[in-house]
Amino acid sequence: MYEGAIQDLIDELGRLPGVGPKSAQRIAFYVLSADPVDVKRLSMALQRVKDQVRFCTTCFNVAESEQCRICRDPRRHDEAICVVEEPKDVVAIEKTGEFRGRYHVLGGAINPLEGIGPDNLRIRELMTRLQSGEIKELILATDPNTEGEATATYLALMVKPMGLRVTRLASGLPVGGDLEYADEITLGRAFEGRRQI
Amino acid sequence: MYEGAIQDLIDELGRLPGVGPKSAQRIAFYVLSADPVDVKRLSMALQRVKDQVRFCTTCFNVAESEQCRICRDPRRHDEAICVVEEPKDVVAIEKTGEFRGRYHVLGGAINPLEGIGPDNLRIRELMTRLQSGEIKELILATDPNTEGEATATYLALMVKPMGLRVTRLASGLPVGGDLEYADEITLGRAFEGRRQI
Repeated sequence: MYEGAIQDLIDELGRLPGVGPKSAQRIAFYVLSADPVDVKRLSMALQRVKDQVRFCTTCFNVAESEQCRICRDPRRHDEAICVVEEPKDVVAIEKTGEFRGRYHVLGGAINPLEGIGPDNLRIRELMTRLQSGEIKELILATDPNTEGEATATYLALMVKPMGLRVTRLASGLPVGGDLEYADEITLGRAFEGRRQI
Repeated sequence: MYEGAIQDLIDELGRLPGVGPKSAQRIAFYVLSADPVDVKRLSMALQRVKDQVRFCTTCFNVAESEQCRICRDPRRHDEAICVVEEPKDVVAIEKTGEFRGRYHVLGGAINPLEGIGPDNLRIRELMTRLQSGEIKELILATDPNTEGEATATYLALMVKPMGLRVTRLASGLPVGGDLEYADEITLGRAFEGRRQI
């Protein structure tokens, strides 16, 4: 145990996800010897995230005003909504430059074991958006794992009566990967989804 | 890239030791959805470490006043000084409850490859303390690695003319460990230092 302030900081850091007692101690001693300006910047950045960042009232992505940058952008089209689990998935898809429509962030995936059902996700808000009539395609880009697949299946069933085109991102071999290291489910999906060249 | 404040926080967190881009993002999103009171506490703890914590003017351990808790404690004796590299080593030794003397924190170990020589450590200050005459034993508790051994050897040579008892912590098998998993140097030391029972 250290004296007062340094032990308090170790305790607070230890509460963060992925920071164990050893890393908390290491970070605390780094802070102790760091430039006061850098520490001030970190502590201000923490406060500002709480004060300024909220969730877009349309798509629930992170935003600094009522709507996020993407929902506000008039150069993007309203014909397709790409449904993802988390804001970080929006960032990942934006990096590809492949999509120019809008997003909808569910805030997670259906996971009965953790008590997360459809009502805990932003599904009702998605349904309201789909009723606008402008949207022609719903792209289901939830994670390719059990919870993500379950959520995509659930959404596909709900949306079907609306006559929209509903798509799911392709599963297959990761580019740059080695065929022999692919797991059997991925390799199976790659076969299923094979395309003529 | 995220909007403003959240990206700033990811960038700031990414500068901390042992926090990569993925963990920085994970912590930033945790902060975003955390209780504002918890975030305030963390940001205050960061500031307080910079404002309140300094180094003990006697032993260079972390302290909140001019002297650290151990140097101020009148129930501890002044006959032995235990020399360690870092404040965290003081904490480790205090946990054993084996030592009731004082400490001296060098602030590192001699490491020519990283440009750390004797002048970069608190060795001059240690020599001044030893001249008080009260001290009978100097316990060298630097790390049992190349840099720690070099530092201990250097200190032993410097202190020898003063006629003090100079000791080094025992090397040997860790308690609770498996003999077969001990590396050969540790096992060699354990043989060397074997004791009659």
